Amino acid sequence: MKGVVLLSGGIDSSTTLAVARDMGYDTFALTILYGQRHEREVRSARDIASSMGVVEHTTIQLPNDMFRSGSLTTDEEVPEVAGAEDNIPTTYVPARNLVFLSIAVGYAEVISADAVFIGVTSVDYSGYPDCRPEFIRSFQETSRLGTKRGIEGHPIRIITPLIDMSKEEIIKLGRKLGVDYSLTWSCYRGGEKACGRCDSCRHRLKGFERSGIEDPVEYEVVR
Amino acid sequence: MKGVVLLSGGIDSSTTLAVARDMGYDTFALTILYGQRHEREVRSARDIASSMGVVEHTTIQLPNDMFRSGSLTTDEEVPEVAGAEDNIPTTYVPARNLVFLSIAVGYAEVISADAVFIGVTSVDYSGYPDCRPEFIRSFQETSRLGTKRGIEGHPIRIITPLIDMSKEEIIKLGRKLGVDYSLTWSCYRGGEKACGRCDSCRHRLKGFERSGIEDPVEYEVVR
Repeated sequence: MKGVVLLSGGIDSSTTLAVARDMGYDTFALTILYGQRHEREVRSARDIASSMGVVEHTTIQLPNDMFRSGSLTTDEEVPEVAGAEDNIPTTYVPARNLVFLSIAVGYAEVISADAVFIGVTSVDYSGYPDCRPEFIRSFQETSRLGTKRGIEGHPIRIITPLIDMSKEEIIKLGRKLGVDYSLTWSCYRGGEKACGRCDSCRHRLKGFERSGIEDPVEYEVVR
Repeated sequence: MKGVVLLSGGIDSSTTLAVARDMGYDTFALTILYGQRHEREVRSARDIASSMGVVEHTTIQLPNDMFRSGSLTTDEEVPEVAGAEDNIPTTYVPARNLVFLSIAVGYAEVISADAVFIGVTSVDYSGYPDCRPEFIRSFQETSRLGTKRGIEGHPIRIITPLIDMSKEEIIKLGRKLGVDYSLTWSCYRGGEKACGRCDSCRHRLKGFERSGIEDPVEYEVVR
């Protein structure tokens, strides 16, 4: 069995890769760049992919200005405080998971893979529309209808192993499956050390704290 | 009103651009390259876009080997005879319209466009799963669920003006709307003149013949 795993180099996608491997899939990691500031993540993706023994790690560069809207890809300041639950945060990137999943499905069809793994989670749901189960379900149906594999009765499965898990649970699971979290990167800012203050760092730190595991990554802010 | 138009440089997408303009949209043409052989089409897309007065023409290059599967992107011979109706032709490109529409929706959200136009047609349906109305409908719903715009009650519309039209009808419509078909390119092969023998040339020639309009493009084969 072959599985394509969308790998950003963060905790969720790295843990997802470990789950795919644990399920017996030969894993093909796919990292999609879209001019995000944190090129640091890409280094992490490469290190994680290699530490997890993927068959292949493919990196696709989309045009840098393609997603120029949210604060992740422009000069807008990354917010330090998490947005209210009913608002879509400024770190939203237009149609990102739609584009990522579509490219992953195309790649999966080319290499005859059976599944695409994506590490979305709707528990620590911070307002991204494209991380919700109803979006994933709908995408699964659309990709079935729009591919040769789907029409012929062998649709590519979209697997979201973390969808019902909290960050704490994800970290505990990954630890059990041998993920080396010192290689991962979560910070929205692009420095050498994680900032410890952005939305993503806060989520990560809270998750490690709750899991009782020490975060092996270095932070700018002394905590 | 702003509309993104997926523009390959062929008859269908060029006519779709004319329809969008005729509907009063400020048009933003989007050409997506995926290592197809017919780079000739790209020149056509540029010429068409400029002749139709688009606001902007954006070209996105996807990695050349991303869609390496069908005969359009590999060295496999392009078939000369159209496939049986119940088979998916070898010119099928994995998840192409899924990827194209997803990127177009992302781009539309970035520039605050209201609609994405795509020139698919299910009448001269040659077996591509991603040209069928059920795929388009499903995609529309998925993109609504996966975007900020959709969630906020202003989904980006996916408009397929040609979906119920034959090639003959498309050509007649485009002629009325001022499309200069001498600028378009349909041939699957990449020569200076169209081959006149491939599936796409045959479709095109039959369409012109039935419409009673002369095809202004030059062919290798004397007909």
